[in-house]
Amino acid sequence: MSLQDNINLNVKDLLFINNIKSMAVIGASAKRDFFFLRNHQNSFKGKVYAIHPKLEEIPDFPKEDIYASILNVPGDVDFAFIAVPAKLVLDVMDQCVKKGVKLVTVFTSEFSDAGTQEGEALEKELLKRAQNKVRILGPNGLGLYYPKIGMAWRPNFPTTAGNIGFIAQSGGICNIAIYSSIELGIEFSKVFSFGNGADLDFVDLLHYLINDPETDIILCYLEGIKQGRIKKLKAVLKSNKKPIIVLKGGKSKTGSKAAKTHTASISGDNTIWRTFFKQYNIIEVDSLEQLLHTARLIDCYGVCAIKNLTVLSISGGYGVILVDIIEHYGMKVPPFSSETHDEIAKILFMPGTSSNNPLDLAAQFFAINKVQEIIEVALLDINIDGLILDLPGFYLTLPPRIQDPSAFLNVLLESLNLGHKHQKPLIVITQHLTRPKNIDALLMNLKEKNVPVFGDPLEVIPLLPKISRYALKKG
Amino acid sequence: MSLQDNINLNVKDLLFINNIKSMAVIGASAKRDFFFLRNHQNSFKGKVYAIHPKLEEIPDFPKEDIYASILNVPGDVDFAFIAVPAKLVLDVMDQCVKKGVKLVTVFTSEFSDAGTQEGEALEKELLKRAQNKVRILGPNGLGLYYPKIGMAWRPNFPTTAGNIGFIAQSGGICNIAIYSSIELGIEFSKVFSFGNGADLDFVDLLHYLINDPETDIILCYLEGIKQGRIKKLKAVLKSNKKPIIVLKGGKSKTGSKAAKTHTASISGDNTIWRTFFKQYNIIEVDSLEQLLHTARLIDCYGVCAIKNLTVLSISGGYGVILVDIIEHYGMKVPPFSSETHDEIAKILFMPGTSSNNPLDLAAQFFAINKVQEIIEVALLDINIDGLILDLPGFYLTLPPRIQDPSAFLNVLLESLNLGHKHQKPLIVITQHLTRPKNIDALLMNLKEKNVPVFGDPLEVIPLLPKISRYALKKG
Repeated sequence: MSLQDNINLNVKDLLFINNIKSMAVIGASAKRDFFFLRNHQNSFKGKVYAIHPKLEEIPDFPKEDIYASILNVPGDVDFAFIAVPAKLVLDVMDQCVKKGVKLVTVFTSEFSDAGTQEGEALEKELLKRAQNKVRILGPNGLGLYYPKIGMAWRPNFPTTAGNIGFIAQSGGICNIAIYSSIELGIEFSKVFSFGNGADLDFVDLLHYLINDPETDIILCYLEGIKQGRIKKLKAVLKSNKKPIIVLKGGKSKTGSKAAKTHTASISGDNTIWRTFFKQYNIIEVDSLEQLLHTARLIDCYGVCAIKNLTVLSISGGYGVILVDIIEHYGMKVPPFSSETHDEIAKILFMPGTSSNNPLDLAAQFFAINKVQEIIEVALLDINIDGLILDLPGFYLTLPPRIQDPSAFLNVLLESLNLGHKHQKPLIVITQHLTRPKNIDALLMNLKEKNVPVFGDPLEVIPLLPKISRYALKKG
Repeated sequence: MSLQDNINLNVKDLLFINNIKSMAVIGASAKRDFFFLRNHQNSFKGKVYAIHPKLEEIPDFPKEDIYASILNVPGDVDFAFIAVPAKLVLDVMDQCVKKGVKLVTVFTSEFSDAGTQEGEALEKELLKRAQNKVRILGPNGLGLYYPKIGMAWRPNFPTTAGNIGFIAQSGGICNIAIYSSIELGIEFSKVFSFGNGADLDFVDLLHYLINDPETDIILCYLEGIKQGRIKKLKAVLKSNKKPIIVLKGGKSKTGSKAAKTHTASISGDNTIWRTFFKQYNIIEVDSLEQLLHTARLIDCYGVCAIKNLTVLSISGGYGVILVDIIEHYGMKVPPFSSETHDEIAKILFMPGTSSNNPLDLAAQFFAINKVQEIIEVALLDINIDGLILDLPGFYLTLPPRIQDPSAFLNVLLESLNLGHKHQKPLIVITQHLTRPKNIDALLMNLKEKNVPVFGDPLEVIPLLPKISRYALKKG
């Protein structure tokens, strides 16, 4: 993507982001215990300056890095986090232009989000003052989370860099997503909270992530885009090769009004958006949880078309329910080929089991080596695209007849890893409600091995046809 | 319900169940470390006998309570748990009849569930041998979990009696439900796993729970009923006053086949069942998780019609998503009355907040006394039927400016309890993925106070219109 391409697309060049080395927090607030300053100080790997007109000391912050104005900072400042009252933002922006700051986050709200003429005028003036020299995330945004360089606006954000990019108008949504990523086992390349999107908007940031070598999967929470940007959006999407998953906010009548209050977004006609997403092969989901879980599935197993599934359960009844849900969502739990069936019938030996698909393991689950063989045989069946295993947590409180629990758990882990060996999704369901503390280590291990564990079949099964449609259309 | 009524309905009298005082486990297996014997021994409050033809000693079990045959037991035996090989079940049944046992569980499988003529013949013969004197749960079932008297077939089943009854063909489903009840905060009166239902079937047990004074809410996992029983089912339902929630297994083509393998059930036509459930005002759900969550909601707030909801969020974006989901499921997030709006506007004072419905608290969440006032005002609005609050767990890692965290948490708890005060459901959503360990105590406290906390909006919002329809039809 050359500069000329960027100009043709009328999107902004943001490649400098990958080279940010220094930053300032402007408006460090003693009342909030220097919240944003502390958080960046604790994790940013480059230089952090504190800018405050009056304060000369900040507890546990180097005195020599506090300046009354950003203009007094001797070295370069690539990025600034601005959290001053709205009436001071314009002056601060003038100084950032003068200093040569490349990117700012304007956390301050009560611009166009206030829904007043004054707010809108202030936002326009802010944009004017930036002179196209300083790029803006916000106002009313939390800006950039960039774990590779430790840029983080809240405490305890993970510092491991991943390959998932996320663009959201809402900072609160970003917070939930970033903290959730730890539990879920996904890692972000960059997360953008662009708030009102006065300068950098959804289209600019999407264009950036599509071309960002550090990003492979793109997630979006989108409340709407500004008038006149849809053409640019289409142009940006034309060259896209990465899976994009979007959660559209403001689909309902009241939701649409709320989005307007929230970030001054025009949500637009839901039918038009839906058609648009289909046309550009964008995966649409209905909740933040679905957005994150879809990313996790793609992160673990890539994008793959799943038509036929094997269901393995310890409870025959739960197996029946899984089959009902799977077929309700348009996939199949087909009979095994006669070879597969015969091989499995040889392995299963206890009464109460079933060697048909869905496979009912019953108490044979505890003969874990057999379970491993069965999973292997089932995944080798060329008609089977993936496997869903019901694994209630309490069965892992092993009965005393299991002489060597750690050997049992090792074989279980290997078995659950077979999806990766056969390049077919193997998905575990361990109900949220049945997770005794003693399985924490197992869950952690599966997370590290990229074996996704879900807590409710309705959390994951509806996502599979969405990924399949993407994979089939992509070809 | 008199004996004559029972005869007219052709259902079996089971009121004796509430007076079970003694039991035997027949077929204690050394290989499985006396699994069923141990579990009953550990929690049953009455007398437990072990019946085994050869064993004279069982580790940690009183030698004097081991008998070669149930006929040798000196005292009464009200209930027997039978886990002998299929070929021995008939003889054991003869002995139970002779001994005057009132109820047995036949855990042994490979009867009609085997799908063979031999299996079916054996099941018929078993029924014949019982002579209508011994009532049977099973074969291929786990029988009765009855916490009030400590009857429990697996370890660590809760021993606190509640008011929720559950009937399921599948024992595995019962296991998941019973262990889940701990985490969820519901308690069972009785759980029946009736397997193939050779004698006691869905209709008998439903009739029993409808008339059981210990049961207020009835849950069912139903794969199908035997031919000719639908008339009885209708007759049983006619007098019902309790909410019944059903999960129908075998709705899909493959699921229906799997149900046949599982418990020899004929699932029947799904459309007919759906119409039937509607006609009898039975709440139908799509997963075991939905079944349990619906019970939890009714247990916390009774059956109430919810049309209009208030949404309270810390993240404006998450609020928008909640509104979209709520309106997608046919409910409304309406504007407040002008009085309510004005009162809330007086309380909310920070920029970035919104005093419309949905309410965006933003950082004002940390002014917890204000949050309490807002919840109170919102619930007092006569046009509002309930409130959903988004409470990501990480916000409860309180910032240092909160001087007294335990006072904060106390006010939060009181605020979340306001649903009970105003008799309107107040539902908390704390994402499964955002639950740091430090909020365990809070979650436990909410559980005890019957304030339901869900981990995903799609886990709870789709259930509300189901409960509302029930409430409106019931009148």
